[in-house]
Amino acid sequence: MTLRSAVLDNFAELLGPKGMSTDPERIAPLLTDWRGLYRGAAEAVLMPSTTAEVQGIVRLAAQHRIALVPQGGNTSMVGGATPPPDGSALIVSLTRMNAIRLLDANARTVIAEAGVVLQSLHETVSERGLRFPLTLGAKGSATVGGLVSTNAGGTQVLRFGTMRKLVLGVKAVLPDGSIHNGLAALKKDTRGYDLDQLLIGAEGTLGIVTAATLRLVPQPVDLATGWAGVASPQAALDLLRWFEARSGNAVESFELMPDHSIRAVLNHIPGTRSPIDGAHRWHVLIDYAGEGARNALEMLLAEAIEAELVADAAVAASVAQSN
Amino acid sequence: MTLRSAVLDNFAELLGPKGMSTDPERIAPLLTDWRGLYRGAAEAVLMPSTTAEVQGIVRLAAQHRIALVPQGGNTSMVGGATPPPDGSALIVSLTRMNAIRLLDANARTVIAEAGVVLQSLHETVSERGLRFPLTLGAKGSATVGGLVSTNAGGTQVLRFGTMRKLVLGVKAVLPDGSIHNGLAALKKDTRGYDLDQLLIGAEGTLGIVTAATLRLVPQPVDLATGWAGVASPQAALDLLRWFEARSGNAVESFELMPDHSIRAVLNHIPGTRSPIDGAHRWHVLIDYAGEGARNALEMLLAEAIEAELVADAAVAASVAQSN
Repeated sequence: MTLRSAVLDNFAELLGPKGMSTDPERIAPLLTDWRGLYRGAAEAVLMPSTTAEVQGIVRLAAQHRIALVPQGGNTSMVGGATPPPDGSALIVSLTRMNAIRLLDANARTVIAEAGVVLQSLHETVSERGLRFPLTLGAKGSATVGGLVSTNAGGTQVLRFGTMRKLVLGVKAVLPDGSIHNGLAALKKDTRGYDLDQLLIGAEGTLGIVTAATLRLVPQPVDLATGWAGVASPQAALDLLRWFEARSGNAVESFELMPDHSIRAVLNHIPGTRSPIDGAHRWHVLIDYAGEGARNALEMLLAEAIEAELVADAAVAASVAQSN
Repeated sequence: MTLRSAVLDNFAELLGPKGMSTDPERIAPLLTDWRGLYRGAAEAVLMPSTTAEVQGIVRLAAQHRIALVPQGGNTSMVGGATPPPDGSALIVSLTRMNAIRLLDANARTVIAEAGVVLQSLHETVSERGLRFPLTLGAKGSATVGGLVSTNAGGTQVLRFGTMRKLVLGVKAVLPDGSIHNGLAALKKDTRGYDLDQLLIGAEGTLGIVTAATLRLVPQPVDLATGWAGVASPQAALDLLRWFEARSGNAVESFELMPDHSIRAVLNHIPGTRSPIDGAHRWHVLIDYAGEGARNALEMLLAEAIEAELVADAAVAASVAQSN
């Protein structure tokens, strides 16, 4: 029996049969990143179900000087969740910690454990008429802990900022096994040092995030999507500034696409057509939220055409068309 | 000559005649807080004009183990800028560092030195059609460095958050005399640890803030002020949630006042009258921003009356009436 095996027995004892696996088939998908660019090795994956278990893992690992690689949905594009190839580290998967603990609709906050999948968070809060505004392509796998630890962005950063702006508090197990509990949420919290801010975006290097208090926003009453043809990236930027100046904070997303990308879609995907006629070198997709969004967006785009900021524009007739 | 005097000579040499004063009359107003509740002592006030001079001060002070109390506009209500009464510390006043260094209207950011007075920042950015949304009663004296170091709030926290949400970067001199330069501003900045966040709200204990990059917002095209009579604080909270759900992020401020405060004003200040008729136990003041703000606010308040959230309401007919 190697020393490592003896240590693994300690982890197994701490975590129980559901809390650890050394099965190579179970571990294999956790050893590489989404693009398959990085490949690592690990003898075991540890799967704690409570913060106390994470604490036990960290203490045991520190005692035996074993490195830990925390992992959420393993949707990283930069190898941040891939263990080193020499097999010196163990993976700590937080996916079993997937409870949504407290949804306070009045204060518009929710406490979610690290393993809660983004899409499941979206669904739970939307049942209460609320919305967690951060979203991204990997929402079906990405977890709260990973989003916090990477300070994730996504498509609505323009209006709502990165994860940092949406996290009101963090609970984490620090390298010495102590627990940092910053879950108490207060909008005007100006007490002392904000240590939560250090854990956000630290990629797990300063501690293992086990839960976070998140800010929710009301669901928009109306959401409209517009499309505009513009002459250049500078014209798109001018249009964005113009929009923001007129509409407060109603622009949710604003994406710029070159014409050749649009052409590629139209040429290769059957049944697609351009939302606007004519040739435009650049295209802008605008999501606009607020009371009477569709009318407001139409009016603003009409004004923008008159002001020669935009060559041509259209607004989606329905939500289905927006998607 | 005491040791202290010899050390003061070193500071004088470093800072030149404008950079230090030992004149008791000059120092006196810096030894007490705005309310006069705290009183301290200091042999000298140091008045650096550059970050390099602050660095020199910190190094010299560290060498001689002299405590430093950084001070901006000295508008603290909690004695945070008052030196200790035993005279063991020197005051570092940042008020000479009052340059607005870079206003990028396109990126909507500004770099302001620590001593820039809030009101002067407001005026400078408004000339460029922009707005720094944090404001508070002491704006004629409060400085950027103090606002950053105390993570100041003010009256628009509801919409724009505390200073932390408006600071994109901080430059500071750390206790070992090294310079932390985080002034580069990027909205989607997710690189590494965000050390700026530790300096914000640290009350000068982790370093002396010498400049900050601040986020600006467009000036609202329209701003309207409304007044509503409500039955209870809970009704006011319900009204706020109702407003926020319908208006996106247009509610800038929302203040609750008990009727007896309003009565006191009406009884004791000649020429005042209540914005609405009738007796209401609680009153709410609402600032609302956005395209067609006055009409939108009138419509929303009318709906709120119909929904029995509000007993009676009025909207100010002009900006002058709003103030």
